[in-house]
Amino acid sequence: MLSLRRAVLRPKSSRLAQRCLGTISQGLQTQKAEEDKGRIIFSGIQPTGIPHLGNYLGALSNWVQLQKEANVNDKLIFSIVGWHALTLPQNPNELSQSRWEMLATLLAIGIDPKRSVMFHQDDNQCHTELAWILNCITPVGKLRRMTTWKARLADSRNANSTSEIDESMLNAGLLIYPVLQAADILAYRATHVPVGEDQTQHLELSRDIAQSFNRTFVPGKKRFFPLPTQLSTPSKRVLSLRDPTSKMSKSSPDVQSRIILTDSASQISSKIRSAVTDSIKGISYDPVQRPGVSNLLTILAACLQKEPEEVASAYASKSTGELKSDVADAVEALFNGPRAEFERLRSEKAYLVQVAKDGAERAKELSEETMMSVRSMIGLH
Amino acid sequence: MLSLRRAVLRPKSSRLAQRCLGTISQGLQTQKAEEDKGRIIFSGIQPTGIPHLGNYLGALSNWVQLQKEANVNDKLIFSIVGWHALTLPQNPNELSQSRWEMLATLLAIGIDPKRSVMFHQDDNQCHTELAWILNCITPVGKLRRMTTWKARLADSRNANSTSEIDESMLNAGLLIYPVLQAADILAYRATHVPVGEDQTQHLELSRDIAQSFNRTFVPGKKRFFPLPTQLSTPSKRVLSLRDPTSKMSKSSPDVQSRIILTDSASQISSKIRSAVTDSIKGISYDPVQRPGVSNLLTILAACLQKEPEEVASAYASKSTGELKSDVADAVEALFNGPRAEFERLRSEKAYLVQVAKDGAERAKELSEETMMSVRSMIGLH
Repeated sequence: MLSLRRAVLRPKSSRLAQRCLGTISQGLQTQKAEEDKGRIIFSGIQPTGIPHLGNYLGALSNWVQLQKEANVNDKLIFSIVGWHALTLPQNPNELSQSRWEMLATLLAIGIDPKRSVMFHQDDNQCHTELAWILNCITPVGKLRRMTTWKARLADSRNANSTSEIDESMLNAGLLIYPVLQAADILAYRATHVPVGEDQTQHLELSRDIAQSFNRTFVPGKKRFFPLPTQLSTPSKRVLSLRDPTSKMSKSSPDVQSRIILTDSASQISSKIRSAVTDSIKGISYDPVQRPGVSNLLTILAACLQKEPEEVASAYASKSTGELKSDVADAVEALFNGPRAEFERLRSEKAYLVQVAKDGAERAKELSEETMMSVRSMIGLH
Repeated sequence: MLSLRRAVLRPKSSRLAQRCLGTISQGLQTQKAEEDKGRIIFSGIQPTGIPHLGNYLGALSNWVQLQKEANVNDKLIFSIVGWHALTLPQNPNELSQSRWEMLATLLAIGIDPKRSVMFHQDDNQCHTELAWILNCITPVGKLRRMTTWKARLADSRNANSTSEIDESMLNAGLLIYPVLQAADILAYRATHVPVGEDQTQHLELSRDIAQSFNRTFVPGKKRFFPLPTQLSTPSKRVLSLRDPTSKMSKSSPDVQSRIILTDSASQISSKIRSAVTDSIKGISYDPVQRPGVSNLLTILAACLQKEPEEVASAYASKSTGELKSDVADAVEALFNGPRAEFERLRSEKAYLVQVAKDGAERAKELSEETMMSVRSMIGLH
């Protein structure tokens, strides 16, 4: 528990942290003053619908943990970022359903709308307004250097045989969504952002954009936008139960490969029992040689809030069957409460609508304060 | 007058019009039904501050004419598009002042806030929301093919010696502002857009985007967004009084090169008297050989709502001095009323704020209706 806490609350000891240390002393003093006022923590999640175990252990449980461990004067802002989902083709009916299922999920796992600001991004137009403004100070070249853009580009090149098909076919939203992410964060002048390793580059861009805005528009070269700091979150990479060389994924056609929040105890048990492992005797944690067994250990350790190696040593002489049985029990214990709550909430649309409405109002209030200053600084007032 | 009217109200007989004729008959019927309901005419102007004679004769007078000649069930929507101004570096104080001066100008020249919806684009966040959505269905390649983008690119290449400096240095706003323009138009489901020749390509893009949205998201392949038609406006290209080979421009360092709305009668007279002409005897309209004299004829003809050739023949045997004197009188007669009104209005900030507020409310009401449908169609509801 304590190790998780340290991991969650410690700024990432990376280039980001070094750059933070490298800023001028005035900047550090400002940062110190900001911390005394309490942190403003922002995080977003796409409306992917009912989460699977990988989503839960990878991101959602971190939010709950953050809420539990935050100081009383920290502000927590959690957003379901529907506009980001549009960068890829979506079935509108499914997207709408997923949007509400994600809200029900957040409530079910324990995000408290009284403690945290929880809202649909697409209910607060300040995000797109600020994104436009920031697009006007963000060079195209920086966006084209994002690895996510390069990966899309590589995908599109593989998918098509002709060499003419290049970035021209990709939609502009894919190019500029890191600017919308920056706006998501900066609209609340957030100081801390819990994100995974894969988002480090985007958060650096947000810092660059914040600096660029401060330099261009803030009188007296003061810091209007804080440079958001990455909160390192324990990254529990949960793998597919059928193919433990790839991540557990919503899009896999094999439903046996993942456990979702609405699975019953017997479904959980059956999926874990049929999980791919190996025929090596005993239990040991070795992600390379024994990916299936190691994945089960990762899951069990996460449920118990321990380290996989620690769990492995306790199971060293036990059988895979015993391990599977305990993993199934642990997942059921983890999901039991949230699942019941999710099932109860998903049908209470009126309540969900009210939570979303209240959350959007609070989000708008906070971001409108930012935008009033921004509009004034850029001359649109 | 009649010729102007025909010119203003006739859809442009160009590729656009041909494409319009080429759509399927259902589309034409829809268009017919739309026209029976009245046209929705949208146009935007950047907050460039006190207009000069070129702005006035080139764009602003067309708006007044449109308002005068529109049918009672036509909806007129005029926007001061501050967000577009951000694509180029601005002095925030000057931008803010220009924003209010442009509103005062529109009122002073006769745009009636009771008849037309007149508002600051940056007061209506629906524009940036819709722009985001449209960015997600607009290929980057289409934006890179815009001649405005290519021109910026060419500029940046000339300005810098190293070959590495390319589009990467330009801000993303410059790349995607045609999508914001499309959103400006489509947020009101506008059917007609009065724009100059230089905007034809952007309007075609708006039509493409509208079609793409209809195809992707509208159930039953119905047409949700009308394909906006270009309203050809008489393009009176007013040239510099000091260098009649270039356009009259706000940015020229020589204030003698332009007449602005706030110039007094004696300033107008002095600037016209010192206008560069030639030493050829008599008056004739010949823009290539006699750009200075032809420019004065263009101005006089526009003030009198005649054709330059017609005016030229009446002055054939007169002197340049006589022409200049009449041009000065005509411009003074044109600006006299609006100037007094502008001077009165520019100090009435509270009134301007109220006009902007009322306009924004009406604009939001109209665009919110569009956005409710859009959100529902794309699944963000």
